[in-house]
Amino acid sequence: MQVDIGNALAAEADPGISRDALARLDEDVARAHDRIATGRAGEEFGYAALNLPERTDAAEIEATVEPLSDAEAILTVGIGGSALGAATISEALGGLDTEGKAADAAPLYVLDNVDPAHVREILTEVPLDRTAVNVVSRSGTTAETLSNFLVVREAMEAAGVDWTERTVVTTGEAGPLRELADRHDMPALDVPTGVPGRFSALSAVGLVPAAIQGHDIEGLLAGGQRAAESLAPSLFDCPAYAYGAVSYGVAQRGADINAVVPYAERLEFFAEWFAQLWAESLGKDGLGQTPARALGATDQHSQLQLYRAGPRDKLVTMVRPRERADRTIPETDIEGLSYLGGSTLGDLLDAEFEATEASLAAADRPSVRVEIDRLDAECVGELLYAMEAACVLYGELANVSTFDQPAVEWGKRAARGLLGGGEFEEAAAVADKTELVVE
Amino acid sequence: MQVDIGNALAAEADPGISRDALARLDEDVARAHDRIATGRAGEEFGYAALNLPERTDAAEIEATVEPLSDAEAILTVGIGGSALGAATISEALGGLDTEGKAADAAPLYVLDNVDPAHVREILTEVPLDRTAVNVVSRSGTTAETLSNFLVVREAMEAAGVDWTERTVVTTGEAGPLRELADRHDMPALDVPTGVPGRFSALSAVGLVPAAIQGHDIEGLLAGGQRAAESLAPSLFDCPAYAYGAVSYGVAQRGADINAVVPYAERLEFFAEWFAQLWAESLGKDGLGQTPARALGATDQHSQLQLYRAGPRDKLVTMVRPRERADRTIPETDIEGLSYLGGSTLGDLLDAEFEATEASLAAADRPSVRVEIDRLDAECVGELLYAMEAACVLYGELANVSTFDQPAVEWGKRAARGLLGGGEFEEAAAVADKTELVVE
Repeated sequence: MQVDIGNALAAEADPGISRDALARLDEDVARAHDRIATGRAGEEFGYAALNLPERTDAAEIEATVEPLSDAEAILTVGIGGSALGAATISEALGGLDTEGKAADAAPLYVLDNVDPAHVREILTEVPLDRTAVNVVSRSGTTAETLSNFLVVREAMEAAGVDWTERTVVTTGEAGPLRELADRHDMPALDVPTGVPGRFSALSAVGLVPAAIQGHDIEGLLAGGQRAAESLAPSLFDCPAYAYGAVSYGVAQRGADINAVVPYAERLEFFAEWFAQLWAESLGKDGLGQTPARALGATDQHSQLQLYRAGPRDKLVTMVRPRERADRTIPETDIEGLSYLGGSTLGDLLDAEFEATEASLAAADRPSVRVEIDRLDAECVGELLYAMEAACVLYGELANVSTFDQPAVEWGKRAARGLLGGGEFEEAAAVADKTELVVE
Repeated sequence: MQVDIGNALAAEADPGISRDALARLDEDVARAHDRIATGRAGEEFGYAALNLPERTDAAEIEATVEPLSDAEAILTVGIGGSALGAATISEALGGLDTEGKAADAAPLYVLDNVDPAHVREILTEVPLDRTAVNVVSRSGTTAETLSNFLVVREAMEAAGVDWTERTVVTTGEAGPLRELADRHDMPALDVPTGVPGRFSALSAVGLVPAAIQGHDIEGLLAGGQRAAESLAPSLFDCPAYAYGAVSYGVAQRGADINAVVPYAERLEFFAEWFAQLWAESLGKDGLGQTPARALGATDQHSQLQLYRAGPRDKLVTMVRPRERADRTIPETDIEGLSYLGGSTLGDLLDAEFEATEASLAAADRPSVRVEIDRLDAECVGELLYAMEAACVLYGELANVSTFDQPAVEWGKRAARGLLGGGEFEEAAAVADKTELVVE
């Protein structure tokens, strides 16, 4: 992986970070690296995530899902960190839903919302008797996930399918899902302890669908390990820290928003995964850089006007694989289009990438370029790990509590109260809403 | 449509707008409404978009696409404003890609990027001899769209399909696509004059796929017309203006980001469409509120921590249909989950909606609630029109040039130069990039 921070320097961009400031920041990076190393060595909560490439047992995952290897579709039932890692990995390797239909792999469907229309559409779409259900919840009580699982189970029963034969559970050591798996002797894997959901992509939480699809789980972990080994006490020696430190540095100087723009359709979920990682880890104490998800080249025709001419409150993170399978644009005699013929779609996409990056630089807007070699298991593992390490570093530099998410609890209690799941004062507050309705 | 701005009042939220300030702002709204009315009456550039519900000829669109009404799939080839409106409308009515397969309608695929892997996947997926190709470009020269169209044409020829029989063109009065349509006597429709792409959803640009799918085009326009008729010289009498004025008011007070969170999977593209509308229209002169796309309830497990505990720089726009087809959650004896059984997935989604809104209010974070009756043609047309009117109003209040997008031209010239499409100084600037590479 390669990170180019040249376009985020103060000489090039406003906000930007000067080379002097970068050198000073690098001393903080060295201290943060020490803290991270200590946390990893002690398997401390959160820091333990950065040991997953070594800790995750690929063979165990593969053996556990082996009974489901004949699946023609995979249905992940989870939400947030229990779904995004799996979706990101399978999509990047060409196994998500529409992408998957063109590939050999069984396509992955993700049930990460409780919209009844959406649930019905997915249940109509997948062949229930040949689908592997991958239900993921650490606590085993997540309302959205368990509701969806109850509905999926009912649909399978109605179709005469033994759901206990078609389901793999990934959950914590105890709780309703663990008990269910034990009772029915279902294949089950552990949500790793000490690892927040959003940092769990390189564990069973993120790897089960890819394993069923026959993707290279060892390669994903090896790529993560490559990034782990690249962690070093200077941002100038470590791409992950270069990214984390510069993001922090420009955020301090006004880049309150981080627009993540992958130039690859298969990295669309990556941008969502990154958005959770960044938002939940760093959004606390009134601090945090807001992730904005985008997609290149498409969003040049949507967001670029704002990025280039709006407020100076953004860092643009441009992400691309350097190699891709390509397709030549046919020659044409249509007037004004002959210049396109003979180029490839990849040439065009790369030209757009470089043109957009230069266009931001010409307007003195900061950007960082993140490149991986290609969209294969190793590079994807490396990318995910590096972004996690970048996020942990940012959290250290900002002195926030990177690994918790206390602000989401209020709403969970309110929703549970509204559904009759107990007495919660938060539910009462819902009725007190101030209304000013215009219709 | 109903807009509730109660949770964006200063008494409830920081940033928020006081009732006094709102009353003063309403005088500006009255003036802006006059300006908008004058612009509409004179069919002035941009303002003309707000006349589309009256101006668009549904019968002409239906007659033009009639030869393609047997299509089993639709492939829209366009980008930005030439694709997002169509994708938004067809998805909202249940006709996008995966959604469509469960419905009766021919599914819509959108080719709005030049990623070669993605193009190949789509071309493998659709039955080329039974696909309607919907190519959209006002100029007829958009590099991404025309490159993709050349590739699609080649794939059809290779499959022995006469592409001239399977394609409907939507383009301007002149240009390569218009000439091509004339030469081959292909069905063709007009991109409306005086209407920027991002405001063209309620014209042929956004309606062709829905028309092929047999959706109620007249209903979409009638819904738009309903919103048009609700425009009034006070924000307290007009939901569209209430939304636009309050968004502007809280942006002035620090809400630099507008997080749009639909609670319906079928409104996922709506959030993208909104993001283009807001970003390209308002992101200029160093101003503009940055749209952040999200999805409820999913993103409660991803973005809510940041929205509730991060910087006070956000307005959260909560969008939902009030009625939906529903599904009961089965009763269960699984310990701790019994409270879910007997509720519906829709109950759960609504509880999450209300809990999240209350959770933001409890942390003094501003939100606005936008509700439509249901996801049908009329309500979708109404929603799109209302958001366009809200955007135009915001532009008037902010005194920006709402209908242009000058900042995207630099990159287009650079990309064209890089591909050998002429001499452009912008292309030369690409090679001058400052590098600081960490690997």
